Amino acid sequence: MTNNPHTSLTVFENEPLILDSGQSISPIDIAYETYGTLNAARSNAVLICHALTGDQYVASSHPITGKPGWWTNIVGPGKIIDTDRYFVVCSNVLGSCMGTTGPASINPENGQPYGVDFPVITIRDMVRVQMALLDALGIDRLYAVIGGSMGGMQVLEWLATAPERLDRAVVIASSARHTAQNIAFHEVGRQAVMADPHWQGGAYLSGDARPEKGLSVARMTAHITYLSEAALTRKFGRNLQDRDDITFGFDADFQVESYLRHQGISFVDRFDANSYLYITRAMDYLDIAARHGGRLADAFAGAGHVKTCVLAFTSDWLYPPEENKRTVHALNAAGVPVSYAVIESDAGHDSFLLKSQQMEDVLAGFLSAPERAETAP
Amino acid sequence: MTNNPHTSLTVFENEPLILDSGQSISPIDIAYETYGTLNAARSNAVLICHALTGDQYVASSHPITGKPGWWTNIVGPGKIIDTDRYFVVCSNVLGSCMGTTGPASINPENGQPYGVDFPVITIRDMVRVQMALLDALGIDRLYAVIGGSMGGMQVLEWLATAPERLDRAVVIASSARHTAQNIAFHEVGRQAVMADPHWQGGAYLSGDARPEKGLSVARMTAHITYLSEAALTRKFGRNLQDRDDITFGFDADFQVESYLRHQGISFVDRFDANSYLYITRAMDYLDIAARHGGRLADAFAGAGHVKTCVLAFTSDWLYPPEENKRTVHALNAAGVPVSYAVIESDAGHDSFLLKSQQMEDVLAGFLSAPERAETAP
Repeated sequence: MTNNPHTSLTVFENEPLILDSGQSISPIDIAYETYGTLNAARSNAVLICHALTGDQYVASSHPITGKPGWWTNIVGPGKIIDTDRYFVVCSNVLGSCMGTTGPASINPENGQPYGVDFPVITIRDMVRVQMALLDALGIDRLYAVIGGSMGGMQVLEWLATAPERLDRAVVIASSARHTAQNIAFHEVGRQAVMADPHWQGGAYLSGDARPEKGLSVARMTAHITYLSEAALTRKFGRNLQDRDDITFGFDADFQVESYLRHQGISFVDRFDANSYLYITRAMDYLDIAARHGGRLADAFAGAGHVKTCVLAFTSDWLYPPEENKRTVHALNAAGVPVSYAVIESDAGHDSFLLKSQQMEDVLAGFLSAPERAETAP
Repeated sequence: MTNNPHTSLTVFENEPLILDSGQSISPIDIAYETYGTLNAARSNAVLICHALTGDQYVASSHPITGKPGWWTNIVGPGKIIDTDRYFVVCSNVLGSCMGTTGPASINPENGQPYGVDFPVITIRDMVRVQMALLDALGIDRLYAVIGGSMGGMQVLEWLATAPERLDRAVVIASSARHTAQNIAFHEVGRQAVMADPHWQGGAYLSGDARPEKGLSVARMTAHITYLSEAALTRKFGRNLQDRDDITFGFDADFQVESYLRHQGISFVDRFDANSYLYITRAMDYLDIAARHGGRLADAFAGAGHVKTCVLAFTSDWLYPPEENKRTVHALNAAGVPVSYAVIESDAGHDSFLLKSQQMEDVLAGFLSAPERAETAP
């Protein structure tokens, strides 16, 4: 097996992490998985950044659900991100709930779970924690940093914040800012969580109940945005669930209803409601251009040496091709070498998690072409 | 003023209405508004069918919100639907909460509000009640029946069920079936309502509290689907609400958040949560072709004499042009004279409620061209 033992380490113990908000956190636990072996030159490390409700189990089974890793299509021995060749690192993001410090962690100041006392974080704060992880692992420079959706946002913050540590960067189905519609869907999800009386102003962890119904509704709404009208029609159409006719009631007559309810219910078993609030907020706050006078290209001024690749999917209406093209234009305008591919798919935003020969071909070509002799593993 | 006095009447007093479900309701109150004067030949009646959360106040101010009627752009003296020329009727649909019998009405069997004892209804059941209203008003035949969104679904059921009573029919931004994605968004809204502990299994009317938070979340989600990415970007973008910078918190930093919260909060003042469940369910159950062996054209076999017009909007992703074109193909295949126009708009599904010169021109041309000499007013 290529999966090294589950690991975590603690950073920012002596000096706190100063966040974009001006607040600080200390210490920070980072839960991460690694696959493969770091070579002697320490030049074959690939950092994979996960999405909103993703985790570090990129190619190993999830400890709660028992499901296989979320990107086993792509990551593994002999696969596109070849763990016989690369040392793959994936860490749970700051603010999440799978071992890295987040709102469900204990606040050292009072011995209670942080809840809404946890400071609001940004995507760049997540990247700062990843940098500390790489420091601790003795990795100065990445062969590649790769991520889809919110993972791609982290990659863009890497390009804006620490390009000197990168040789390659892959941004999949993502964006350098959240649009009004993106914010709107997240706000609905947050309101659903906060409307649940079990949320208790965020302090539910000291009680017995969790805001499961609210979080479930939030997940159901979000899940619709991860798919597409075509995918929903292909998978479910108006098919009925285990019945011959409509029942003239409010049960899940239709398969699509049953499927969504299942998505909601199973999500609450593995995810913390406050983490959902904090991470969606971090995504909404993302606007990399705003830090650079409104010109996104200026954010990438230091990344001229980084070989980049941007991938979009035709049916992705959450982060559509036009939004990915904005990123490509900015990288081009900054003199960053960038290849851009729009992959045909009717599966919507979640396409990046599914098997796609086109995506594999693009990633394989991009990752194996050596940029500079000294950085090839 | 063209608005006749607010009116309601009671039908199905002696014989109950038998619903599509096989259940029945008796009696049924119908609240309706009329504008203009029915001519001596009784040939100038125009029935306007309202949308999901609409009402009979098509061109008169809403008694709760005090806002002007929802289609004053189109309906009024000298306007496209000219109340100096036509006798305009608009009734609150069965299952709603503005005076027509619905789940908030008193169940004559026990003197309590129906709640979830109200039978599940269909769009065709709504049309059956409209027919009873026209019978009571002495109107055999309509100069035109017109509706947008769920109103258009009622028009399609009129064409399928009682075409002999129609001379003209206008279907705007609508569909003859609910797709998987349409059902999915409605199901999320229903789950949000039912997740609210104040819903009380539907029996909240006998208590003091209403499921306001759940209904508000449902409305917020739905409202996003009524707009478009372009409209949200144009109206709000990432503009902040009454502040110079983000606050690193969960307040409504962004205008789009503030706007959505307002949409949710103001909706609960004027709408009954159970009505929302029943009417969304009626829309989800709509599949006119299914009653006709899967061939939509067969539903319109009796409508060959009805002049029809179908309108769609380019940016409507709830009932997109492709879905409206399905309806047009079926009408054509049934030999029904149909004109089809796709109106340029970036405002999404709600375009039909906004000022649009293109829409006005199409409607004006369609309504004023006499089909047969004897039916012109």
